[in-house]
Amino acid sequence: MAGTNPGHDEIVWVLPVSHAISPLAPASFPEMPPVAGVRLATAAAGIRYPGRTDVLLALFDAGTTVSGVFTRSKCPSAAVDWCRSHVKGGRASALVVNSGNANAFTGRSGRAATKLTAEIAAKAAQCKPDDVLLASTGVIGEPLDATKFAGVMDGLVADAAPGRWHEAARAIMTTDTFAKGAAALVRMGESAVTICGIAKGAGMIAPDMATMLSFVFTDAAIAPSVLNALLRQGVEDTFNAVTIDGDTSTSDTLLAFATGAAAARGVAKLSRLSDPRLPALRKGFNAVLANLAEQVARDGEGARKLVEVVVEGATSKKSARRIALSIANSPLVKTAIAGEDANWGRVVMAVGKAGEPANRDRLSIYFNGIRVAHKGERDPAYDEAAVSAAMMKPEITVKVALGLGKGRDRVLTCDLTKEYVAINGDYRS
Amino acid sequence: MAGTNPGHDEIVWVLPVSHAISPLAPASFPEMPPVAGVRLATAAAGIRYPGRTDVLLALFDAGTTVSGVFTRSKCPSAAVDWCRSHVKGGRASALVVNSGNANAFTGRSGRAATKLTAEIAAKAAQCKPDDVLLASTGVIGEPLDATKFAGVMDGLVADAAPGRWHEAARAIMTTDTFAKGAAALVRMGESAVTICGIAKGAGMIAPDMATMLSFVFTDAAIAPSVLNALLRQGVEDTFNAVTIDGDTSTSDTLLAFATGAAAARGVAKLSRLSDPRLPALRKGFNAVLANLAEQVARDGEGARKLVEVVVEGATSKKSARRIALSIANSPLVKTAIAGEDANWGRVVMAVGKAGEPANRDRLSIYFNGIRVAHKGERDPAYDEAAVSAAMMKPEITVKVALGLGKGRDRVLTCDLTKEYVAINGDYRS
Repeated sequence: MAGTNPGHDEIVWVLPVSHAISPLAPASFPEMPPVAGVRLATAAAGIRYPGRTDVLLALFDAGTTVSGVFTRSKCPSAAVDWCRSHVKGGRASALVVNSGNANAFTGRSGRAATKLTAEIAAKAAQCKPDDVLLASTGVIGEPLDATKFAGVMDGLVADAAPGRWHEAARAIMTTDTFAKGAAALVRMGESAVTICGIAKGAGMIAPDMATMLSFVFTDAAIAPSVLNALLRQGVEDTFNAVTIDGDTSTSDTLLAFATGAAAARGVAKLSRLSDPRLPALRKGFNAVLANLAEQVARDGEGARKLVEVVVEGATSKKSARRIALSIANSPLVKTAIAGEDANWGRVVMAVGKAGEPANRDRLSIYFNGIRVAHKGERDPAYDEAAVSAAMMKPEITVKVALGLGKGRDRVLTCDLTKEYVAINGDYRS
Repeated sequence: MAGTNPGHDEIVWVLPVSHAISPLAPASFPEMPPVAGVRLATAAAGIRYPGRTDVLLALFDAGTTVSGVFTRSKCPSAAVDWCRSHVKGGRASALVVNSGNANAFTGRSGRAATKLTAEIAAKAAQCKPDDVLLASTGVIGEPLDATKFAGVMDGLVADAAPGRWHEAARAIMTTDTFAKGAAALVRMGESAVTICGIAKGAGMIAPDMATMLSFVFTDAAIAPSVLNALLRQGVEDTFNAVTIDGDTSTSDTLLAFATGAAAARGVAKLSRLSDPRLPALRKGFNAVLANLAEQVARDGEGARKLVEVVVEGATSKKSARRIALSIANSPLVKTAIAGEDANWGRVVMAVGKAGEPANRDRLSIYFNGIRVAHKGERDPAYDEAAVSAAMMKPEITVKVALGLGKGRDRVLTCDLTKEYVAINGDYRS
């Protein structure tokens, strides 16, 4: 089916996935309403995977604003370079996302591919190339043949329709085991605005795939500066508080689009950070980000347990975050949880290596609410049977109380299983 | 045999190890000469493992100097606390090391156990408790019953003899798959000095074991300040340049002892850093540290490949080190090597996430000398068959040339295999 643009109900989803859906997946893709001013279409351009969609086009009504946050990698993909420079204008007419090829570490040909992709989309959508945003995920180091988009782009523009979230979320998957979407409705005076988001997580089975992509859309009218602040504050406790293996992709991209279509229903533009309606919008926006981020953790490679790490009593939130990440990224903690072992000694180790203020003799550790260590020693009331039963649950909360101050933070991760190693190391065997 | 002190030739080594010796192990324990002024003895005190030795006593002649470097963990073991405060005096009469219990996260009872251990050793060896150094490795969070040392200490003192390196190296093992020792002879004018070292690595099969311990002994006479400088400079490119999983133990301890016995053979004391004989001594000293550190990497949990990461062309050595550690600690790089996959895309990812200066378009990457990526793109001469053959070797060098400056560094690690996860996660199943 490469190069054709199958209709909405004709697509047969043949995903390049040899393993089962994560046991931590939600029961189904959520019901998500359309966002006025956003139309979506997907196609199979034959980038890499046969028999499945691999291109997503989103078209935006005039006046749509955009903001983005990107990987901190010093070796970002060509699409990230493109977005970083083009998001500055704050305007968006279209978004093109492809799976199958990350267009990363592709040198000059990678830069040419982004330019060509934007030109192809702009011509079909009758907009400026500078108002086209791009994201790519898939193989690193292989040239991306952007001419493949030319064959499908007119069809995508003609086909684009509101509300195709599930279809969109599937087209951007690489080896995710389920499609990820989340939505929120926020009341604003007499009317309401809609916020919808999709994401793909870290799934790597064929060589080199490693990207977190997420796109969030709202019909609220939001000035670029306000959208930017909303996004930067929103990621801090959501996407920036999730870690699978501590590895940072070359392509991580989160873009937020605000079409402003709700203005026609009487929702005035949000132009200032002091707008009294902003807290409500922020709450809905952050809820969508948090839900998507949790889904990414639930689809961590080989994950069998969702792990929440809570650190409280730190000297600051920043210090609590560093300690929580040290625990969440520790292979020894993660393998212990995979083994259903309440191994608090390894948690102590991870606290100790974080380099942040910690006093061994004030430290308490809890697994799923059961205190296992207290004031620097094993809890006198430690009950092996109760703790073992708690560790068998699919969701594990590790809480560390430092007893030093009021700093608190939380990060999400998953356990480290033999399946992780198999997914990332076995494909040559 | 718990609580008894078996003679040298009667010990039956029953190690608590259910898996085979690392395929990366040296063929045999090295021939190591005695160090004048050092006597060694081991015993089975029944700390945890039945039927094997678990205590090492080293006795030092009068005038022996000592220096130490310790874990950077903010939650160190009681033995580390003890050593940190007692190494300051620069004098040592005895060293007691036990395996089976790390005496970490044991609160007040842990501090009392260190004091009691030193008192028991001091009484038997007729020295001051303040001149006894301690190290413990094994389970975290369980009280260490130091009274067990009382039953074996007199026997250890009576039994102590020079040159028992292999025996000493075995007594401090937890789940290492082989004993680790290294020696060097350094000519000094008409005479020579000997440097011998032993180490244990990161082996964790029963819960909570995680320690790197190493002890280095020389008959050179070295002032504490000089010994301290030698040690601090020596660890930088040896033990500090090895990583198994990025996790830092609560108990990491490296102690260096200089007995000064070589003075009787005409080797004058090294009292100043400007001593012209110091470079030769440093060379031998560092060679012992480097050899031991490499053995630790060769015995990394589940290791099937020894991995050397070389970074050159960085803006500084410090920057090269950070990038090398980012690569060496990346689960995605390590699983790729386990899968014998020359996955340079993941190396790019790890370079990018290090946060150090790097220019994608100047980057070249080599696996075992074969250039796979050049100036930001796949090498035009890339030969899949040649690279695949190279990746099947047990020793893999990953070289990254950044093309920015003259900073160069090197770290050692091992691959990440399913056995690592099994060793650290399976013991509950």
